[in-house]
Amino acid sequence: MASLGDIGVAAGFNVLTALAFLLAFAFLRLQPINDRVYFPKWYLRGMRDNPVVSGAAVQKFVNLDGRSYLKFLNWMPAALNMPQDELINHAGLDSVVYLRIYITGLKIFVPITVLAFLVLVPVNWTNDTLGHNNVVYSPIDKLSISNVPNGSKRFIAHLSMAYVITFWTCYVLFKEYEIITNMRLRFLASEKRRPDQFTVLVRNIPPDPDESISELVEHFFLVNHPDHYLRHQVVYNANKLADLVEKKKKMQNWLDYYRLKYERNPSERPTTKTGFLGCFGSKVDAIDYYKSEIEKIGKEEAEERKKVIKDPKSVVPAAFVSFRSRWGAAVCAQTQQTSNPTVWLTEWAPEPRDVYWNNLSIPFVSLTVRRLIIAVAFFFLNFFYVIPMTLVQSLANLEGIEKALPFLKPLIELHFIKSFIQGFLPGIALKIFLIVLPTILMFMSKFEGLISQSSLERRSASKYYIFLFFNVFLTSVIAGSALEQLKTYLHTSANDIPRIIGDSIPMKATFFITYIMVDGWTGIAGEILRLKPLIFFHLKNLFLVKTEKDREEAMDPGSICFDSTEPRIQLYFLLGLVYAAVTPFLLPFILVFFGFAYVVFRHQIINVYNQQYESAAQFWPSVHGRIITALIVSQLLLLGLMNTNDFEQSTPVLLVLPVLTFWFYKYCKNRFEPAFVRNPLQEAMMKDTLERAREPNFDLKAYLANSYLHPVFKGDEGDDRYSVVDDDEWMGEEVIVPTKRHSRRTTPAQSKHEGSDSLSVPESALQR
Amino acid sequence: MASLGDIGVAAGFNVLTALAFLLAFAFLRLQPINDRVYFPKWYLRGMRDNPVVSGAAVQKFVNLDGRSYLKFLNWMPAALNMPQDELINHAGLDSVVYLRIYITGLKIFVPITVLAFLVLVPVNWTNDTLGHNNVVYSPIDKLSISNVPNGSKRFIAHLSMAYVITFWTCYVLFKEYEIITNMRLRFLASEKRRPDQFTVLVRNIPPDPDESISELVEHFFLVNHPDHYLRHQVVYNANKLADLVEKKKKMQNWLDYYRLKYERNPSERPTTKTGFLGCFGSKVDAIDYYKSEIEKIGKEEAEERKKVIKDPKSVVPAAFVSFRSRWGAAVCAQTQQTSNPTVWLTEWAPEPRDVYWNNLSIPFVSLTVRRLIIAVAFFFLNFFYVIPMTLVQSLANLEGIEKALPFLKPLIELHFIKSFIQGFLPGIALKIFLIVLPTILMFMSKFEGLISQSSLERRSASKYYIFLFFNVFLTSVIAGSALEQLKTYLHTSANDIPRIIGDSIPMKATFFITYIMVDGWTGIAGEILRLKPLIFFHLKNLFLVKTEKDREEAMDPGSICFDSTEPRIQLYFLLGLVYAAVTPFLLPFILVFFGFAYVVFRHQIINVYNQQYESAAQFWPSVHGRIITALIVSQLLLLGLMNTNDFEQSTPVLLVLPVLTFWFYKYCKNRFEPAFVRNPLQEAMMKDTLERAREPNFDLKAYLANSYLHPVFKGDEGDDRYSVVDDDEWMGEEVIVPTKRHSRRTTPAQSKHEGSDSLSVPESALQR
Repeated sequence: MASLGDIGVAAGFNVLTALAFLLAFAFLRLQPINDRVYFPKWYLRGMRDNPVVSGAAVQKFVNLDGRSYLKFLNWMPAALNMPQDELINHAGLDSVVYLRIYITGLKIFVPITVLAFLVLVPVNWTNDTLGHNNVVYSPIDKLSISNVPNGSKRFIAHLSMAYVITFWTCYVLFKEYEIITNMRLRFLASEKRRPDQFTVLVRNIPPDPDESISELVEHFFLVNHPDHYLRHQVVYNANKLADLVEKKKKMQNWLDYYRLKYERNPSERPTTKTGFLGCFGSKVDAIDYYKSEIEKIGKEEAEERKKVIKDPKSVVPAAFVSFRSRWGAAVCAQTQQTSNPTVWLTEWAPEPRDVYWNNLSIPFVSLTVRRLIIAVAFFFLNFFYVIPMTLVQSLANLEGIEKALPFLKPLIELHFIKSFIQGFLPGIALKIFLIVLPTILMFMSKFEGLISQSSLERRSASKYYIFLFFNVFLTSVIAGSALEQLKTYLHTSANDIPRIIGDSIPMKATFFITYIMVDGWTGIAGEILRLKPLIFFHLKNLFLVKTEKDREEAMDPGSICFDSTEPRIQLYFLLGLVYAAVTPFLLPFILVFFGFAYVVFRHQIINVYNQQYESAAQFWPSVHGRIITALIVSQLLLLGLMNTNDFEQSTPVLLVLPVLTFWFYKYCKNRFEPAFVRNPLQEAMMKDTLERAREPNFDLKAYLANSYLHPVFKGDEGDDRYSVVDDDEWMGEEVIVPTKRHSRRTTPAQSKHEGSDSLSVPESALQR
Repeated sequence: MASLGDIGVAAGFNVLTALAFLLAFAFLRLQPINDRVYFPKWYLRGMRDNPVVSGAAVQKFVNLDGRSYLKFLNWMPAALNMPQDELINHAGLDSVVYLRIYITGLKIFVPITVLAFLVLVPVNWTNDTLGHNNVVYSPIDKLSISNVPNGSKRFIAHLSMAYVITFWTCYVLFKEYEIITNMRLRFLASEKRRPDQFTVLVRNIPPDPDESISELVEHFFLVNHPDHYLRHQVVYNANKLADLVEKKKKMQNWLDYYRLKYERNPSERPTTKTGFLGCFGSKVDAIDYYKSEIEKIGKEEAEERKKVIKDPKSVVPAAFVSFRSRWGAAVCAQTQQTSNPTVWLTEWAPEPRDVYWNNLSIPFVSLTVRRLIIAVAFFFLNFFYVIPMTLVQSLANLEGIEKALPFLKPLIELHFIKSFIQGFLPGIALKIFLIVLPTILMFMSKFEGLISQSSLERRSASKYYIFLFFNVFLTSVIAGSALEQLKTYLHTSANDIPRIIGDSIPMKATFFITYIMVDGWTGIAGEILRLKPLIFFHLKNLFLVKTEKDREEAMDPGSICFDSTEPRIQLYFLLGLVYAAVTPFLLPFILVFFGFAYVVFRHQIINVYNQQYESAAQFWPSVHGRIITALIVSQLLLLGLMNTNDFEQSTPVLLVLPVLTFWFYKYCKNRFEPAFVRNPLQEAMMKDTLERAREPNFDLKAYLANSYLHPVFKGDEGDDRYSVVDDDEWMGEEVIVPTKRHSRRTTPAQSKHEGSDSLSVPESALQR
């Protein structure tokens, strides 16, 4: 175990690194040349232009104003100053609620830290168990529960503390859930008219031999939602078209680049080679070449575009159906349409930006199979990833390499290379895996068939959390790979598992303190420095940026990356809750993390990140759920720890806590979660009524016309020659539903059902 | 272990008993005097009157026709003859689908039995492990898996069999689910107009200081479902009134009785005593006394009735809201009304007969607390019921009684008494507990706050199944109370639990065979004899029946009692699936049970039972879920058994099965369950359209008027003086919603929101 001195050294080192990062940041952000790296959000919002500085040319790149360097930390109050409403307006509700995760951390842990230091530290400190046992110990251990003798009555203090922690955490979580629910509802209510308020996504439209999907959708909704149906938008499978558009765009960029080059140096007409990467093949005139290429692709694209629109096979069995009122859409999204619950599945349409187009056409059976496959795959990824890792590592050791590639032997035998391979290679394999992990998890989520970016990120986040829990937290605590743990769990009885883990918890406190400082302090300071985007921006600026548009694209503001950042915050909640009653000394380190990260991320959200979508805090239920999970884990581990410390009387007392906590979870789920999933009719009706009163003649149909078109059909140019709106096909009011069915189906309507000749519904609706 | 001879004896005994019961039944049912015991369903349906036999008076009571005794089993083909559609019409879909549970059992187990006898029996038989080990064994064990040597390759046969069983069971379950879903949908579609099709139950109506609940409901739905709302019925807390009505009815019966007596014997005017049970107190003229009593209670009742209707406090915050169309009701039932998901909870209204009135007023928070309490209570009931049981038993032993009641000592010392106490008393305590158990579980379910009889029965059934699983199945297998098992589970590792249980599974086969014969053969034969109702009917007839109405009530047809019978069928599924791959010899016994029980219950459903409600097979999802549970349990136990038999290679192969089975469960849940929970809009719209075309002028409001009135307001007399329909309060078409709010709330509408003066919605709707 590390001594207090070791921790001091580590703390000093980390604080210094963090400070160095902050200083570097303070210096770099003041240089105009870096403006687009540190303030991209403002550029994207159109509120900032290239820094215009009157003076020497050098001032365009370097800030020579000495005074501005003196106040190198003034970004902090600036970040904290923006009021909440303005922040929501500026960055969206998602970002603001994301920041509240840190605030929740502070709210939970500040009082717990104070109480733990007031109560538990004296209780632990005034024992002398560790001294008696002749083990090597540090003052930190004297502060921890390990210093209390086995079976001592003093454990009652820890028990009470566990109760206080549970109730306080639940109280804070309840309040936060309430606040965030209200924020979400207010946000949704204050929102202007948005296409997704009127639109429902329909999936798994069953095939019909007599009608196209578009006709089928129209008939179905005219029959079953006669007073509310407005229009629909079929979904095209436009993946190939999107590729072509992308390719054309790239060519256009090269063309712009060469034109620019030619303008700057008109004496020489630029040339390029037609082969791979412009390095091989015959030499041609660059501008002419790209012009002809663009023309060629343009033709191809137009053809494909025509094909997609005309060919009924390119229409996937899904559609965005819009309604006359929010009420109509809310009804359709929440109800079951037909007696077969696997077809005509309706759900609230995601924001147009948020739609993940590729997954819209997956049929129902395939969805459930995919879910099974991913569940099994994730299980193996989580518990068995060490196996390929070990293989790679065994290959990456010296003998392995020498055997596989014998000609490298003399090289490897060199001392420097040898130590490098031995020291780094095994670690690098793991490191690469961990860096790629969020991508793998995101791929898994995509394979599962979720249809919005936001839900993809949420699903990936829960997978990542599970991975971190087993492969970082538990692996660090009981020092074994997840696979070994799995074996242990299977071979150990249910009540021994918390005992085994709980037993080693106090001993790992110093390790986790170091972890918090490295990952939570220095890591966060590194986040604000944005080293990677900084380097990439300047590299692109030097070598690749040809046009102003390119520079715009080179900015790469990034986003919060909920799927990888949130689970890492959750790890701190877990550590804090687990150690609160065991080693309170760890808590201040977590407090520093939450406070510091809050300021840093607030700054980033204001100045840097550009969210790709707005889900109105839909992720909160899972954040809440994971904190509850951490709480229950901490209770079970404390239970195990108490048992190893011969204080078994505590078991029934402590068992109450997880039961109550789980009940609290269920209660919150019932109480708040519907607000994040369903859309209440009252709200919808209210907005409808107000809007009808204010703008009685608003043309909703025109407003919704192109909103759910696949992005490739929209185009940046705003040309409407690609608009595939089939508005003219049907008129708004009082449609007599036409049926295009063949005679064999149309006739019986008159003969079979008495009186049904007065109905104008098509037979198709009466088939089921 | 019992030998084949023992089992033969037991089988002979049980077959004889069952035959004796059947003979007794065949004899008794032919006696006209028992007609109301064995054919009450036909009396209730009005298709049978008192048996009129031309001939001697004695023939009114005894059947003297010798020929009819010869065909004493002819009820069996008669029971099987009724076609399904007629049966649905006669007894309801619930009963028919209940019978399908037995059919499902036959469908699953007939092929499995054949296959097991063709494949497994030879594989097991041709070993000689048991002979080598010098243990005492019976031919049954030679047929079981115990006879295969450890680690033998022959286990592959059992593994394949497990796969075949899983796939076959899942296939049958899938097909059955499909059939029953279609039956339900057809049933619902073919149903005539019923009040519950148009009605939604609204609970947790939030209190409002300015409006009564009735006004509040009216305004809320006029605003939020303006085109669909028709009328509503508030729910009164009429428990006291119901008591009074009950009391009056009893008095009326006595009056009728004495009048009858006086008619028969006009010379003596009957008298009664006013005290307890008519045995104490002063003697009065019976007819006058009861007349005055009825008058008194009648006044009280009228007063209470007035109070309930007038007093706003007797209105509970729940209401039945009816809509103009099925579509409107389907929409309202499936959607969330306000942003607060704990108020204005809507759900499909149960059938009027099915409503459990007492629970309609429980608020949301209380509901979740109640659920927690019951969950904890049921956990203790399930695992700790042995503790009070042991206490009672220890008190019920000799020393305990002698100590507690020393004066009984000489009596107890008598040999006969002594052996009685020692032999029976401990068992009786357990027996009484088991008899009372369904009542306790039903009480628990009622406490949980479910609002329909059918859901109460379903909930009780799942509790009972859990209880049977732990306290009958597992207790019999590993021979220890559930509490001891709980300790074992906690102290054993997760992969040892199936091993421990699996290991003792083969040895318990003979015990379960005996169990099946006693409970499943003789028990079922006892069911058809209806000994208890028979005795009670004749006792009542002799001593209590005063009027024809009383005789009607003395019939007690009973009902299926889903909450206690279904879990017991499930036990047979569990035994069959567990033993199919282990001891196939058990399977024929289960087949006999399923076949025999099917015939018996079909007979009972046709002739005896009178269902209290019709839920249209809503219980099938839980039946399906429990069979799946049994399947997964059987797979895990086989896994454990294979491990103890040194065939660990099978573990990964067998682990695939529970994963696939669970996935199958999820798939079925998504595919079929919505049809049992939600009401598709298409169906609703179709029925609406057809009906509007057929009966364009139907007065739905009048039709729905009294349907959801508390039963005490209806009365058998059909007098409408108690109808509290407030029809006249509002008119049907195009209501301008009146608001009765005070000025402080009504005025701002004009001033605050621009343009809102053109709205006719009340402020209340705009508050949230």
